Amino acid sequence: MSILVVGTVAFDAIETPFGKTDKIIGGAATYICLSSSFFNNKINLVSVVGEDFPDSAIQTLKEKKVDVTGLQIKKGEKTFFWSGKYHENMNRRDTLETQLNVLENFNPIVPEEFKKSEYLMLGNLMPSVQKKVLSQMKKKPKLIVLDTMNFWMDLFMDDLKEALKEVDVLTINDEEARQLSGEYSLVKAAKIILSKGPKCVIIKKGEHGALLFNEKEVFFAPALPLEEVCDPTGAGDCFAGGFIGYLAKTDDISFENMKRAVINGSAMASFCVEKFGTQKLTEINQSDVDFRVKEFVNLVNFEI
Amino acid sequence: MSILVVGTVAFDAIETPFGKTDKIIGGAATYICLSSSFFNNKINLVSVVGEDFPDSAIQTLKEKKVDVTGLQIKKGEKTFFWSGKYHENMNRRDTLETQLNVLENFNPIVPEEFKKSEYLMLGNLMPSVQKKVLSQMKKKPKLIVLDTMNFWMDLFMDDLKEALKEVDVLTINDEEARQLSGEYSLVKAAKIILSKGPKCVIIKKGEHGALLFNEKEVFFAPALPLEEVCDPTGAGDCFAGGFIGYLAKTDDISFENMKRAVINGSAMASFCVEKFGTQKLTEINQSDVDFRVKEFVNLVNFEI
Repeated sequence: MSILVVGTVAFDAIETPFGKTDKIIGGAATYICLSSSFFNNKINLVSVVGEDFPDSAIQTLKEKKVDVTGLQIKKGEKTFFWSGKYHENMNRRDTLETQLNVLENFNPIVPEEFKKSEYLMLGNLMPSVQKKVLSQMKKKPKLIVLDTMNFWMDLFMDDLKEALKEVDVLTINDEEARQLSGEYSLVKAAKIILSKGPKCVIIKKGEHGALLFNEKEVFFAPALPLEEVCDPTGAGDCFAGGFIGYLAKTDDISFENMKRAVINGSAMASFCVEKFGTQKLTEINQSDVDFRVKEFVNLVNFEI
Repeated sequence: MSILVVGTVAFDAIETPFGKTDKIIGGAATYICLSSSFFNNKINLVSVVGEDFPDSAIQTLKEKKVDVTGLQIKKGEKTFFWSGKYHENMNRRDTLETQLNVLENFNPIVPEEFKKSEYLMLGNLMPSVQKKVLSQMKKKPKLIVLDTMNFWMDLFMDDLKEALKEVDVLTINDEEARQLSGEYSLVKAAKIILSKGPKCVIIKKGEHGALLFNEKEVFFAPALPLEEVCDPTGAGDCFAGGFIGYLAKTDDISFENMKRAVINGSAMASFCVEKFGTQKLTEINQSDVDFRVKEFVNLVNFEI
């Protein structure tokens, strides 16, 4: 099944206790597409970059069967840039610099042939942009997943709440779930979030795993215990990409299958953090992914 | 199989965002015994209290088939007292007051009939006291589990390292694992800790679950997502009690069975935190425990 992916394609500069990068390729949609590509070969990208964005990076996406028809390249403008620094506890980070550049006036245009995509992944972006994409779809996708962050809640909570009404699955981290719900307990937070529209919510807890809730059930997937987490940037996006990629591949949106999708998403996130930026994602192959999923089975499997 | 439990029997006064208690019954050994009693009816307690300790609390232990022959009652002395305050993030707490009282000169005396106990649970106590118990055993227990905390590492690291050489399983929380190993990564920390003596280490992460490591394998059990965590005091001890209680009941110390023991320990901890102190543990019955273990199965179970 086809997936429409909307989100940033960007430059990042990252500092972690393990090192520092200059400008490298990043952005939510980049990570989502790369991650989804291990499951699916009908990935439709809608995003925007400046003319400073290297053609080689677009080529990499094309090689992964990502359709870049919907990637706007703005002449005379610059690509979105983010730089951040992670602390030893890599669940915390400081933003050092944000240059919105092409994002400032981003008007997403969904190409005709993308408007019937069966799965829709609204990556982390201004809620108003996410809404504009929703309004362009010709038929309601089978599943709409939306990712967001505290930054948008601080600035555009009303827009976000509007978008949430149309969404099937919200992915969000633990602190953001608390902010959105006003509840500290994640179980209570999930209930409140589900009352705002989404049928499911996935609360991402970084190195502490992820919780999937629907109205009646809850499922937990751990993060893989790794010797070293080099760079957490993009882990949540890789998770989302693996999640929706697996669902679109299997074309089954039952809760049971969402559990498997969460495990596959967690596997993709575990690769992402092993090297800086998108590097690891470009090095692994399908058998690496299969093997890692088995590691997750061994990690949590017990017979009672 | 019989379990020898060594640890504190104490008074606690606890403040959490959900309320505040006066002096209530607490202590590591109390929680361990109550938790183990759901799995085992040969629990041998070695501990010490003052003459201010209520007979009714000792009676409660007896009703749970705990043999209190090794519980010293010191005339004219007072029971160990701890008071603490938890923050909204209940993985953090401040100690408000510690009165060592009878613990100051505690000389553990293992009754003759306890010296051949098959399982040994060295609850959180001065490492020198834990070592004194080890030296009194007539034959090496099938399994020795030791629990400790940062407080003892700060004061008596050398004693603790000596004790660790004789131990099969160490239970410790994440911050303490980092302190003991000097490594931030829990995977690396576990490896270093295993090189110090224990065959297995369980790293407890509070609401984020627990990791069980041996030299070759790793297993993860989540904490049950609860609407409200009322009071985390004793959760780690209940975990240890359920863990060793299950192992002693099944008399199987394989890694596969330790996984089941970790799940049973996690189930006991999940009850403990639902009310203040030991209250919940005195309210539940066997079918509550069985049902909760099934909730854990549902929480992490997936087919791939």
